[in-house]
Amino acid sequence: MYGLIWLTDLRNKLDPMDLLIMLTSALCHDLDHPGYSNVYQINAQTELALRYNDISPLENHHCAVAFSILEDSNILKHVTTEQYKHIRAGMIKCILATDMARHNEILNKFKSIQPVFDFRNRDHTEVIMVKVSDISNEARPMAVAEPWLDCLLQEFFNQGDTEKLKGLPVTPFMDRDKVSKPSSQTSFIRFLLLPLFTELTKLFPCLEVQIFFYEIIHSNDNLATQKEAAASKP
Amino acid sequence: MYGLIWLTDLRNKLDPMDLLIMLTSALCHDLDHPGYSNVYQINAQTELALRYNDISPLENHHCAVAFSILEDSNILKHVTTEQYKHIRAGMIKCILATDMARHNEILNKFKSIQPVFDFRNRDHTEVIMVKVSDISNEARPMAVAEPWLDCLLQEFFNQGDTEKLKGLPVTPFMDRDKVSKPSSQTSFIRFLLLPLFTELTKLFPCLEVQIFFYEIIHSNDNLATQKEAAASKP
Repeated sequence: MYGLIWLTDLRNKLDPMDLLIMLTSALCHDLDHPGYSNVYQINAQTELALRYNDISPLENHHCAVAFSILEDSNILKHVTTEQYKHIRAGMIKCILATDMARHNEILNKFKSIQPVFDFRNRDHTEVIMVKVSDISNEARPMAVAEPWLDCLLQEFFNQGDTEKLKGLPVTPFMDRDKVSKPSSQTSFIRFLLLPLFTELTKLFPCLEVQIFFYEIIHSNDNLATQKEAAASKP
Repeated sequence: MYGLIWLTDLRNKLDPMDLLIMLTSALCHDLDHPGYSNVYQINAQTELALRYNDISPLENHHCAVAFSILEDSNILKHVTTEQYKHIRAGMIKCILATDMARHNEILNKFKSIQPVFDFRNRDHTEVIMVKVSDISNEARPMAVAEPWLDCLLQEFFNQGDTEKLKGLPVTPFMDRDKVSKPSSQTSFIRFLLLPLFTELTKLFPCLEVQIFFYEIIHSNDNLATQKEAAASKP
């Protein structure tokens, strides 16, 4: 998020309070994540799913933990009541928007307002930037991105294994018997990351993500093809 | 809700599982209510507001408490997994819809689908019936309704007093210095209850609530006018 703010020169387009909302939301958006997705929480009827009535249990929890810390630490003690309300409403909106079940809804809304996009419509700018940051691992150099990807896959496969053990529906992209690193990456980049980043490029042509990602996806496609070809060799 | 199901012959329009959802939602929709509204929870930054990120904190809590009791008591142990999912989704939808901040949103949706209303669209039927039951105190005989209204006003004025003591914004219809019983009732019936019941009558002409409520509101208008006239006498 910090890098994105500099790259897109958002410091000159938004006021500091909005940058604070974006940075703090990005920092807090996965607080106390238990390593099992919302789908798991709901299917396994966990305490979080019960507490949040199956509605974005994780994101609601991350956000509640964030404000519990912010209030305990009293970091925001110098802001006015109105500023606090603004920060709280903004952070809640940003953190809840990181539920990937809402990805298409938010992307479609972003697409629909693109032609008349106004940075003064701060709410939507903040939401989109936090979402972009959330799924931007693959936009970083491979040496930085890959170790995090390995951690993520480990977390996914752990959930898939638990789902099998408990007799719960197995989340398709978390099933170690069905998913490989390259196939998982190309699907994620093609269907989730690229459509969002492509829209973002229209707003910030300086990012030129489109060309960049097409290169990545083609290179990953090639990688997948090569690996599959290698694997199928007798 | 029980009376409403009989009056509208819903037993022959919905299946028993949907009636169960409606009855249980109505029964549970205010569980563990602390006697202070959502606005108070948010302004006073209570534990419930923190937990639910200012989003319908009370209704989310009522619903979570409901399922905690249902699971502890194991009442639903004989339903299948699919049936349980259906009951849970339905009850969550119904109970969260009782947040009066969403009244106009739900009423407008109901109005928009009226011309093509289909009882097989069970979700919306259930939501509307639970909402109607929730605010139906004034549809009962005065001797039954008035003691509950007195309790409600006591709760409202208690919140208004607390808001004044704590220096929080005072909820207008909870301010004992500004609200009288007749004025509060005519506003509530005219702006919230009547528009919803009028729409319901279109679906269930047997209820004839329209005529009934016009009589009530006129009688209450007269009551208010008489009381105000009496109070203004030297």
